[in-house]
Amino acid sequence: MPRWIMEKKLLEFLSEDLGEGDVTVTALIPPNLTTTAKIIAKQNGIIAGIQETTILAECLNLKTQPHITDGQTIKNNQVLLELSGNAQTLLTAERTILNLISRMSGIATQTHTLTQQIKTTNPNLRIAATRKTAPGLRYFDKKAILIGGGDPHRLHLDDMVLIKDNHIALTGSVEEALKKAKTHASFSKKIEIEVTNIQDALKAAEGGADIIMLDNFSLKQAKEATQILRQLGHTEVLIEISGGITPQNILEYAALDINIISLGGLTHSVKALDISLEIVSKKIK
Amino acid sequence: MPRWIMEKKLLEFLSEDLGEGDVTVTALIPPNLTTTAKIIAKQNGIIAGIQETTILAECLNLKTQPHITDGQTIKNNQVLLELSGNAQTLLTAERTILNLISRMSGIATQTHTLTQQIKTTNPNLRIAATRKTAPGLRYFDKKAILIGGGDPHRLHLDDMVLIKDNHIALTGSVEEALKKAKTHASFSKKIEIEVTNIQDALKAAEGGADIIMLDNFSLKQAKEATQILRQLGHTEVLIEISGGITPQNILEYAALDINIISLGGLTHSVKALDISLEIVSKKIK
Amino acid sequence: MPRWIMEKKLLEFLSEDLGEGDVTVTALIPPNLTTTAKIIAKQNGIIAGIQETTILAECLNLKTQPHITDGQTIKNNQVLLELSGNAQTLLTAERTILNLISRMSGIATQTHTLTQQIKTTNPNLRIAATRKTAPGLRYFDKKAILIGGGDPHRLHLDDMVLIKDNHIALTGSVEEALKKAKTHASFSKKIEIEVTNIQDALKAAEGGADIIMLDNFSLKQAKEATQILRQLGHTEVLIEISGGITPQNILEYAALDINIISLGGLTHSVKALDISLEIVSKKIK
Amino acid sequence: MPRWIMEKKLLEFLSEDLGEGDVTVTALIPPNLTTTAKIIAKQNGIIAGIQETTILAECLNLKTQPHITDGQTIKNNQVLLELSGNAQTLLTAERTILNLISRMSGIATQTHTLTQQIKTTNPNLRIAATRKTAPGLRYFDKKAILIGGGDPHRLHLDDMVLIKDNHIALTGSVEEALKKAKTHASFSKKIEIEVTNIQDALKAAEGGADIIMLDNFSLKQAKEATQILRQLGHTEVLIEISGGITPQNILEYAALDINIISLGGLTHSVKALDISLEIVSKKIK
Amino acid sequence: MPRWIMEKKLLEFLSEDLGEGDVTVTALIPPNLTTTAKIIAKQNGIIAGIQETTILAECLNLKTQPHITDGQTIKNNQVLLELSGNAQTLLTAERTILNLISRMSGIATQTHTLTQQIKTTNPNLRIAATRKTAPGLRYFDKKAILIGGGDPHRLHLDDMVLIKDNHIALTGSVEEALKKAKTHASFSKKIEIEVTNIQDALKAAEGGADIIMLDNFSLKQAKEATQILRQLGHTEVLIEISGGITPQNILEYAALDINIISLGGLTHSVKALDISLEIVSKKIK
Amino acid sequence: MPRWIMEKKLLEFLSEDLGEGDVTVTALIPPNLTTTAKIIAKQNGIIAGIQETTILAECLNLKTQPHITDGQTIKNNQVLLELSGNAQTLLTAERTILNLISRMSGIATQTHTLTQQIKTTNPNLRIAATRKTAPGLRYFDKKAILIGGGDPHRLHLDDMVLIKDNHIALTGSVEEALKKAKTHASFSKKIEIEVTNIQDALKAAEGGADIIMLDNFSLKQAKEATQILRQLGHTEVLIEISGGITPQNILEYAALDINIISLGGLTHSVKALDISLEIVSKKIK
Repeated sequence: MPRWIMEKKLLEFLSEDLGEGDVTVTALIPPNLTTTAKIIAKQNGIIAGIQETTILAECLNLKTQPHITDGQTIKNNQVLLELSGNAQTLLTAERTILNLISRMSGIATQTHTLTQQIKTTNPNLRIAATRKTAPGLRYFDKKAILIGGGDPHRLHLDDMVLIKDNHIALTGSVEEALKKAKTHASFSKKIEIEVTNIQDALKAAEGGADIIMLDNFSLKQAKEATQILRQLGHTEVLIEISGGITPQNILEYAALDINIISLGGLTHSVKALDISLEIVSKKIK
Repeated sequence: MPRWIMEKKLLEFLSEDLGEGDVTVTALIPPNLTTTAKIIAKQNGIIAGIQETTILAECLNLKTQPHITDGQTIKNNQVLLELSGNAQTLLTAERTILNLISRMSGIATQTHTLTQQIKTTNPNLRIAATRKTAPGLRYFDKKAILIGGGDPHRLHLDDMVLIKDNHIALTGSVEEALKKAKTHASFSKKIEIEVTNIQDALKAAEGGADIIMLDNFSLKQAKEATQILRQLGHTEVLIEISGGITPQNILEYAALDINIISLGGLTHSVKALDISLEIVSKKIK
Repeated sequence: MPRWIMEKKLLEFLSEDLGEGDVTVTALIPPNLTTTAKIIAKQNGIIAGIQETTILAECLNLKTQPHITDGQTIKNNQVLLELSGNAQTLLTAERTILNLISRMSGIATQTHTLTQQIKTTNPNLRIAATRKTAPGLRYFDKKAILIGGGDPHRLHLDDMVLIKDNHIALTGSVEEALKKAKTHASFSKKIEIEVTNIQDALKAAEGGADIIMLDNFSLKQAKEATQILRQLGHTEVLIEISGGITPQNILEYAALDINIISLGGLTHSVKALDISLEIVSKKIK
Repeated sequence: MPRWIMEKKLLEFLSEDLGEGDVTVTALIPPNLTTTAKIIAKQNGIIAGIQETTILAECLNLKTQPHITDGQTIKNNQVLLELSGNAQTLLTAERTILNLISRMSGIATQTHTLTQQIKTTNPNLRIAATRKTAPGLRYFDKKAILIGGGDPHRLHLDDMVLIKDNHIALTGSVEEALKKAKTHASFSKKIEIEVTNIQDALKAAEGGADIIMLDNFSLKQAKEATQILRQLGHTEVLIEISGGITPQNILEYAALDINIISLGGLTHSVKALDISLEIVSKKIK
Repeated sequence: MPRWIMEKKLLEFLSEDLGEGDVTVTALIPPNLTTTAKIIAKQNGIIAGIQETTILAECLNLKTQPHITDGQTIKNNQVLLELSGNAQTLLTAERTILNLISRMSGIATQTHTLTQQIKTTNPNLRIAATRKTAPGLRYFDKKAILIGGGDPHRLHLDDMVLIKDNHIALTGSVEEALKKAKTHASFSKKIEIEVTNIQDALKAAEGGADIIMLDNFSLKQAKEATQILRQLGHTEVLIEISGGITPQNILEYAALDINIISLGGLTHSVKALDISLEIVSKKIK
Repeated sequence: MPRWIMEKKLLEFLSEDLGEGDVTVTALIPPNLTTTAKIIAKQNGIIAGIQETTILAECLNLKTQPHITDGQTIKNNQVLLELSGNAQTLLTAERTILNLISRMSGIATQTHTLTQQIKTTNPNLRIAATRKTAPGLRYFDKKAILIGGGDPHRLHLDDMVLIKDNHIALTGSVEEALKKAKTHASFSKKIEIEVTNIQDALKAAEGGADIIMLDNFSLKQAKEATQILRQLGHTEVLIEISGGITPQNILEYAALDINIISLGGLTHSVKALDISLEIVSKKIK
């Protein structure tokens, strides 16, 4: 996302929190007071949102001194960033900054945990997100996935042809759906198809899919499907597993000859990382 | 939120998912195909987002037949709503609708659980949200709180004077902060102050606060603080408890002579309710 | 209003005046000409709009040297501000600046006159505006009220519950309306109610209104109402007088035991203060 | 202004008043209540804003029954329009509608008074507005002028070349300014110039100005200037008088051989016409 | 492009033409006049823009009766569409409609000519556009390409990895660039690379490019490159030819074993198709 | 166009090309790489768009070193401008810059050719554009006309009254149309009328038109019409020729006693000037 669009987005988030203006700060804090504050982790994890915080701060004429970079490991009580400048402005922006950085770090932390878990088992396997993001936060949720070491998968419906159950229901069959995709989509797009059984997986490979998504396959079914596909010479087709993957069973799936595991929960059920802001000093300017 | 602003917001959410357009649907689904689909619960809970779904569907010229109203209890496998109309449009909107309704229902369900829990112990006690919402989703998160039976608390920084730790740090004292608020804020605003010990709670009451927030008080401290405040004749001041409240200890806090319990986790760490969409039938028009 | 929103608003005002561009300036003034101009009062009054002028000028890369601060008293022929920079830009912005500063100063001047008038009679009495502002200028009109020493009252319909005649007509009674407000509104909102007779004023106080507005009460009625309310122990409820207040009778109303006098005319029938701009010097750059 | 832009503008005015939503109406008025209200004049005058009210009402799905058309004469207590529909919506829109219609009618009334005054003296003379309008309301203020029988004059700086004192100060002379305008402006634009003495008025006519504005000329000076211009054969050039025109002296100026009288006060110091809204009936739907 | 975004775009185009409103129509045409007009081809070609015209007309409450569908062949003097409704509205929209339909039809006509030319020689070969479109018209230019039978190629820079000369210059080599693309880009994106000689074409194929663009290859070089690539077993890689293709030499290139020919001139140097609007009848309503 | 609106427009053009971001640059180019590039002419012509390029570059924090100014003659292989800064940013903006500068220069070059052609024959004759511009590019197309030495003519429908064939068809006659325009349009607007025969040209002059457009007149008819008009004393009325003017016959028309020749093709059928960007050097920062 280019900077001027990021700035606009972040200022909209701030506006949402502000309404017509912060009546507390206006009543209590002199306009010529400057202050310094630190943003502090209250939990271990992977940090994400430092860049966003820095950009928003610059838009507001606040100075930032980051102690850390997006993607690094953080510990409870660690100071992540110092902010200084006009006290009214700083206090007004506090909640917007914390809300974004907490959510992004929550996503990055969970993604990182999973990518670390599968790393030795299958070094080329990618942990991917889905489009199950919070409305309006697609970019930030996907960026946090990237920071945590995952693959963002499709950002939008124009990124790739991805034929799902409902598309097949309306088109008639896996073969027919793939044929239409090959004919009507631009040559510049990859074609992925979601299948629910091994026969369809084979038809997908034969129909020329670039990626096959095995949807809600049990470990046993997934194993069988990948073996058959690879044995029949479909060595280049990418295989994605989706549905029913948990931290408990992920290693078993990871051991298969697959390329991608995607998980909706990484973005639809985020646990925010606990991060807070504390005033350090003040000065009348 | 008036309807025309809601429509704009929902279409922005859809645009975010669409990008330049759904390349799958364009390649596979004939423009003159109509279809009917049902939205189905895959989990028990409280539903929220039916109104949003209906409005978005109408914007897109899809017909809706809701089987249920926001705030009602739903069971796994229950059909919540039927959608029908142009198949390209319907499939394109699927994910946006599910993302919003799943998040809102997740929030409403959790809020409802807590409000039910405290109901008999303290019928006038309100469960309130905080401003720890997902950026850009303030309105929808707060509406889900309301649907779940909670109080939305401040929507924006212009709603009420709420003096927090960092404001007091910059102002000097509880007394000074309250004096400034009383003088400089419009008569039309309530004044709340966050305190961290009993002495400050008393100063707050004496200084004329409309609401006193006991921040991170242990159960014992909270009990003592409320007793002293009420005994000293501060019967009208509202008391809010915030910080450290869990489903495990909420009943004990609820038994105190307090008015509000607020919880950030209701909106910052949402567990989405599992809801999906299935094609029922199709017809060439 | 945060600075970036103010900038956007002011540039929109300028765009409204510009259309596709100033054809006079383009035809007559060389692009490399710089100039200095002064903004001069042509009337006595209270100045408002210096901050807006400064912000707009900075957006346009013009330098400003203010001789005065918002809220100060100005005299006919006094220089308020010097502007310098690109001559094309400066001339193009002239009318937008003067239109805003003249209106805001007109409002501030009239508000100041009234606040001065009542000051010794009732030092705690506030002169308040209403929502009868020019469409699109709510913020600027209310800010001018503040600069003139008044209370802005509600900025929006979400600021406070204010139950007016038409609400009561649709709800049934003062008691019923207050009961509903107490139950359904968030604890964070004050509740005000407009009444047209003494009985309703009493019901309002007993029903727990935070503020009672005596609407179009004659001086005699207003006196009686406030006496009865206070004698019956409603000492904390705020009393607002609205309707029929003029510079001629305001002192008599001010002598009552009331808290707020609100006047629509402060913003709906503004007399602009006469302010103009004169070129002082020029230079080819 | 085309309808879709008008709709956007009017909804922005309503949003400005709404904030996040009307908390009074939400707490008090059932969503299924419908009501009828009438808009009533509380003063004599010329009505303007009926079209805007109708458009806004339609946007909000309210039905309107206008009893009158923009530009007609209205009397105190006359019903101007009936509104009916959802009671929450109607009450929420009340103030926005009244603020706009009161301002526009105030402008139309004052303009009409002046056009009637000069009509028999000089039937071809136009009463014109200036660009001294409320920021953001240029279109509505100018439309009210038209409805009152006046000429809107320039809407924007791109409408016409109008050379004013500050332009001449920076260009050097009337002759030089006109020469530049003739050379550099598109053939599609008229050229007007403001002059402050008779000599310059003559130079302007000789330099090929389409319109000459006599700025702050006394009656005697204006008379002399127009006589000389016309006698020297400048019969086609339009003459505009501006500055110092009052209801008291306008008839004397009107008697001169001039074409336009322009007055800033018509829009910069508006006296709103008193108009109100009353609930007539209600019904649960 | 979904309909609500199309509507917004088309109304912006109309606004651009309107400015503050059509002063000719306002002065001359009564508001209650209705009229019917026909849109007529003044040249043979392929029509595009009928859908856009219909959508804009509906936004403006004009009725349309299309005689033809986008993509069909049209002849000089053929009536394409009838428009009827309010005469002021219809005349005001005339130029916006004609400007869009003329440009889109110009592009579709030229694309169609080329696709017809190569059809028998190489039935699977696609004629593709580039990103050399008129700023702001990307969607409409690309849609016209599709209507003319071409492939739109990338709409945006996020559609596919396309490594061009300047990227290779900054990365070091074809191999290095491809390696980085494979590692860092999401698995959901295709990877194309532009090469300027046969060696690099081979490296591209070996590096795993999905598409190889032969940039400014002479016919002889192109022939040699494709033969070598195919003989070495790179039968699945798509080959795109770009640069220096003209209607004169296109058939010779088309005879090669390639997949795509792309031409910038299809959109950067458009010859508008001549189309006009004529009033047929009128009626006072 | 004021700078802040220009910036917004140019960033919108860039956003249109970007989509969610440049996936090629993100995968290949390190964020801390800086580079210098030159923009080079690949054809002779007149340059336009240097100012736009400079403004966009500044918005993106790129440094520019222009070797030339808008309106100057350029030769094939001439370096027009150097750009330096962040390599990711620079590559991402390449196509947007080239698309705009190529179109604008194409228009300026063609306009310049025509103005040079007629210069000695009729030094006061203006070459003018029409409203046949690419939708959304009105301002840039018209600015390129100006840079090429032409007159932009109307930018919008609010610039001037221009009565065309369809207006006359709906009004009844040239006389009636002009009478309405004189009465109802503001005195600040010029009035032009399009005529198709000599009789109507005379009626137009007698009716007080400021400009008469001879539409699709043969050279013979145009000659006769201008002679009659001038002989009958209509020496001040401007005469515009439109329709059927080509580089071949323009000199013959130019020899007539006319004021303006307007050509739609200058903007509706633009031939882009060939301009490209080359990387010169790079550096890790």
